[in-house]
Amino acid sequence: MPTYRAPVEESLFILNDVLNIERYNNLPGFAEVTPDMMEAILGEAGKLAQEVLQPLNQVGDHEGCVRADDGSVKTPTGFKEAYDTYCESGWGGMPFPEEFGGQNLPAALNAVVGEYVASANMAFGMYPGLTSGAIAALIEHASDDQKQTYVPKMVSGEWSGTMNLTEPHCGTDLGLLRTKAVLQDDGSYKISGQKIFISAGEHDLTSNIIHLVLARIEGAPEGVDGISLFIVPKFVLDADGNPAERNGVVCGSLEEKMGIHGNSTAVLNYDDATGYLVGTENRGLKAMFVMMNEARLGVGVQGLAQSEVAYQNAVDYAKERVQGRSISGVKEPEKKADPIIVHPDVRRVLMTIKSFNEAARALVIWTALKGDIHRRSDDEEARQAADDMMGLLTPVIKGVITDKGFDNTVMAQQMYGGHGYVAEWGMEQFVRDARIAMIYEGANGIQALDLVGRKLPSKGGRAVQAYFKEVGTFCSTHKDDEKMKPFIEPLSKALTDLQTATMWLVQNGVQNPDNAGAASMDYMHLFGLVAFGHMWGLMVVAAHERLADGANGSTEFYEKKLVTARFYMERIMPESSAHLARIETGAETMMTLDAEAF
Amino acid sequence: MPTYRAPVEESLFILNDVLNIERYNNLPGFAEVTPDMMEAILGEAGKLAQEVLQPLNQVGDHEGCVRADDGSVKTPTGFKEAYDTYCESGWGGMPFPEEFGGQNLPAALNAVVGEYVASANMAFGMYPGLTSGAIAALIEHASDDQKQTYVPKMVSGEWSGTMNLTEPHCGTDLGLLRTKAVLQDDGSYKISGQKIFISAGEHDLTSNIIHLVLARIEGAPEGVDGISLFIVPKFVLDADGNPAERNGVVCGSLEEKMGIHGNSTAVLNYDDATGYLVGTENRGLKAMFVMMNEARLGVGVQGLAQSEVAYQNAVDYAKERVQGRSISGVKEPEKKADPIIVHPDVRRVLMTIKSFNEAARALVIWTALKGDIHRRSDDEEARQAADDMMGLLTPVIKGVITDKGFDNTVMAQQMYGGHGYVAEWGMEQFVRDARIAMIYEGANGIQALDLVGRKLPSKGGRAVQAYFKEVGTFCSTHKDDEKMKPFIEPLSKALTDLQTATMWLVQNGVQNPDNAGAASMDYMHLFGLVAFGHMWGLMVVAAHERLADGANGSTEFYEKKLVTARFYMERIMPESSAHLARIETGAETMMTLDAEAF
Repeated sequence: MPTYRAPVEESLFILNDVLNIERYNNLPGFAEVTPDMMEAILGEAGKLAQEVLQPLNQVGDHEGCVRADDGSVKTPTGFKEAYDTYCESGWGGMPFPEEFGGQNLPAALNAVVGEYVASANMAFGMYPGLTSGAIAALIEHASDDQKQTYVPKMVSGEWSGTMNLTEPHCGTDLGLLRTKAVLQDDGSYKISGQKIFISAGEHDLTSNIIHLVLARIEGAPEGVDGISLFIVPKFVLDADGNPAERNGVVCGSLEEKMGIHGNSTAVLNYDDATGYLVGTENRGLKAMFVMMNEARLGVGVQGLAQSEVAYQNAVDYAKERVQGRSISGVKEPEKKADPIIVHPDVRRVLMTIKSFNEAARALVIWTALKGDIHRRSDDEEARQAADDMMGLLTPVIKGVITDKGFDNTVMAQQMYGGHGYVAEWGMEQFVRDARIAMIYEGANGIQALDLVGRKLPSKGGRAVQAYFKEVGTFCSTHKDDEKMKPFIEPLSKALTDLQTATMWLVQNGVQNPDNAGAASMDYMHLFGLVAFGHMWGLMVVAAHERLADGANGSTEFYEKKLVTARFYMERIMPESSAHLARIETGAETMMTLDAEAF
Repeated sequence: MPTYRAPVEESLFILNDVLNIERYNNLPGFAEVTPDMMEAILGEAGKLAQEVLQPLNQVGDHEGCVRADDGSVKTPTGFKEAYDTYCESGWGGMPFPEEFGGQNLPAALNAVVGEYVASANMAFGMYPGLTSGAIAALIEHASDDQKQTYVPKMVSGEWSGTMNLTEPHCGTDLGLLRTKAVLQDDGSYKISGQKIFISAGEHDLTSNIIHLVLARIEGAPEGVDGISLFIVPKFVLDADGNPAERNGVVCGSLEEKMGIHGNSTAVLNYDDATGYLVGTENRGLKAMFVMMNEARLGVGVQGLAQSEVAYQNAVDYAKERVQGRSISGVKEPEKKADPIIVHPDVRRVLMTIKSFNEAARALVIWTALKGDIHRRSDDEEARQAADDMMGLLTPVIKGVITDKGFDNTVMAQQMYGGHGYVAEWGMEQFVRDARIAMIYEGANGIQALDLVGRKLPSKGGRAVQAYFKEVGTFCSTHKDDEKMKPFIEPLSKALTDLQTATMWLVQNGVQNPDNAGAASMDYMHLFGLVAFGHMWGLMVVAAHERLADGANGSTEFYEKKLVTARFYMERIMPESSAHLARIETGAETMMTLDAEAF
């Protein structure tokens, strides 16, 4: 049976030592967030994850969700009770404004809780996760009336939310969508069409489900400029705002999937379902993008979360499993063999994952904090800069963390040998669950295109220039510090590679857009290397500071950081050259063949 | 529903144009193997794969094997009929000597058939695959009497074979194994113990199962020098050599696995089972290594096979699925969107897999041919050189092709977006099935150690020196040929990286063996890059020759080779620098932390 321990100390290191979140106590909601309070909150979140959610992870995988003939869906044993516990403790309302019943806590802290939940039980976490995204979209784009009607009960978890984009013939290319909306005399719409792959689309956890649905109003233009966003509640509300009449949206089937069996992935059939327009006609995609961006960061967190829990179990196994002897001499002569953690190749795997997890965690929290600044600061310039940065890093977090997070679950599984392939050990579930994160909320190829085609050129390249400046300044600030050299030199080198790649894109992507497409995936991963390297730089500075001040006598944690940082710089950073070399070859060899030649 | 088309033209290109297999017609069994005959054989094998085996692939995954309370195991619907068809056509006997009922055909040709079978239905292919390995071990190490008794019925497929190494507490480290053998008065042994992860360990396809079992004879030394190999038939034979009394070996349970559900992975409980010593007491591991080496090549083929079938389906989908428009301008204006194969990032994925598959296929056949030379040549020096090469390349084929093959199934699945995650499309099965190939027959970390720790230093480095000479000579032969330059320069560069890494290992691995362990995985993959690059070099030479002679008017096939080769050289070869950089950092950063620090 796999286990999980929420890495609270790691999270607090980033929040306190690296980001020094206390210096933001002028932001609304931040003043209360003292180190003690964060520790208390994360301790509770860890307990929830370890004691309530993790024990249901294999149950959920094994039982899956079951649809009855009437279209109702039963979640796995224990999910309903766990969901109630989750809601009663207010976890669903953490980052949302108090006026809707939320606690107005930093998104940075919420992201940490999201990690713990997704490590413990990714399929479970998607139910409240989708609701969070829907709440964010409604808060930004719904009318006051709609907000008052729907948001408080979603914040409390009494109702849940979904996002409905995909149709059988369109996923990435939403311009093709066909679901239609017909205006009624009372100002509502009748929605008809089929949506697929709707996570948490139907279930028995809540008394209502608020579907956010993209549809085309009769007579609207073709393409993406004719798409509107609608609220379609599973139960239409009565005059008192309570769920009443069953709406015309039914779960036609559940997908049989590779993983996340505990989450219901529904085909939803809309047949003259009552819906309410959110925001402006034909501007639905923009509103949905709020939800999508929230979701993308959340999916990045899932990649980290699965990597972390798989890592923890691999470590446990590597310490327990005795097999063979250390090639540098017997380590535990009283046993018949040494534990496999003595083997360098096992260490290589563990250090690779560890150095990723810690950097990815830092990047997630760093970026979530930008979101807080964007939403809460009263300094317009700071808000704008934070938004730029969050927009730039979102595809990196989604694309790179889920790609590498999946790879890490595979490597962790590998450590178990044959046992890793057997269901009862739980390692193969991490692989199957982590796999979806590379696909949904925009497949990672789309993330790479979003980065290269949209985020880079946006506003004259303002965001990426600011980012290069930030990392470049960090490097130049520390470059003469002897003890920083092993970290700054590789980071500077990778930054130069990334800047060279960016220039190459500017010069070659305009003249032939295929060059940009051909480069996009390598560019995104090169960006990820730099972003993680930057995080390692910040973590090393923080560790040095704590070591200098004595760290209250417990220096080991910080010394480990320096070793892990060095591993990252020496072993992972060299990939930047290969990415750059690939990028610079351009599109020619991949575009030469006719489609029929494949 | 996924489909499969056996790539007969690709196989024949390697056999005829690249390797010119006709020049080996002095080897026993090779004279009959004309191009026409190979085409006929492979055409038939392709039909079997496409029409009989592939339609059962999803059935097998869905139904799995089912164990009854009496320990008997039922294979999925259709497997028995397919197995009978397979045996009736003589596929199981292809490479074996005629004296045992085989056809004495080249192993090189047999490897191609193995690829087709494993692409169509990997779980099915394991039943005859394990039998083949057992036959090879018996032919090399069993007594004449044992051979006459068991081998012909295994060659015909009437009986199947298994290999029994793993026990719950030992897989990699066989020195720990506990299964014991007690000598009886009649010269037989009583075998007792538990074996796990026994592929094809119990099933309803054959009238007997010949288990090859590693066990320790009472009083034998501890460790690997006290292990002997035994034949333990499921049914002990009567005086006429027919299956009679049920032996004391029972399937205690089947593992619930991530994939290859169509193959029974059995826990086998031996309780005073009658067994017969194969070869010399306490030398069992050596005999089993014959089977293991056969199996390792076969597993490498599985990696290629899953990569190929996943690729084919990804290509089909990329041509059919319309979504978005080409960034270089609309390609199919009459449709609402272009097929996704217009997108460079889709091309990048397809070319990456294609350039791997074609090189991996060449390497498999090239190496299998070395095996033929080793087994059949009457030139002792040639036999020895071929054996060296096969030994050197075996861990590369097993480790690199299964690692990359798995990655490729993941990339092919990604092309389907959400559909890739859904069972009915079949892509996620390829991922789950391919995953085991990285684990069994020696996890890939063990392959890397085998390469670095055993194969490199063996006989003073004779094999690797010969290999460097062969690739180096190829490079210097063609380096002044203008049209070869785009291929020779990257190959030379990667070869230099590999030689540098080898020297580094010699200098640093002796002084600190952890350096060798720390380098092993990168070294194996660097070796793979060079080996594939060498194959591309050979293929390019062959393509140029055919283009020069007009290729009977159909030049397109050969022109495609040149494009794909260039893609490999430009896009994949740059990884060699990153591998070398990692290797040269040594073991320090991964060995510094205490085990408890993870």
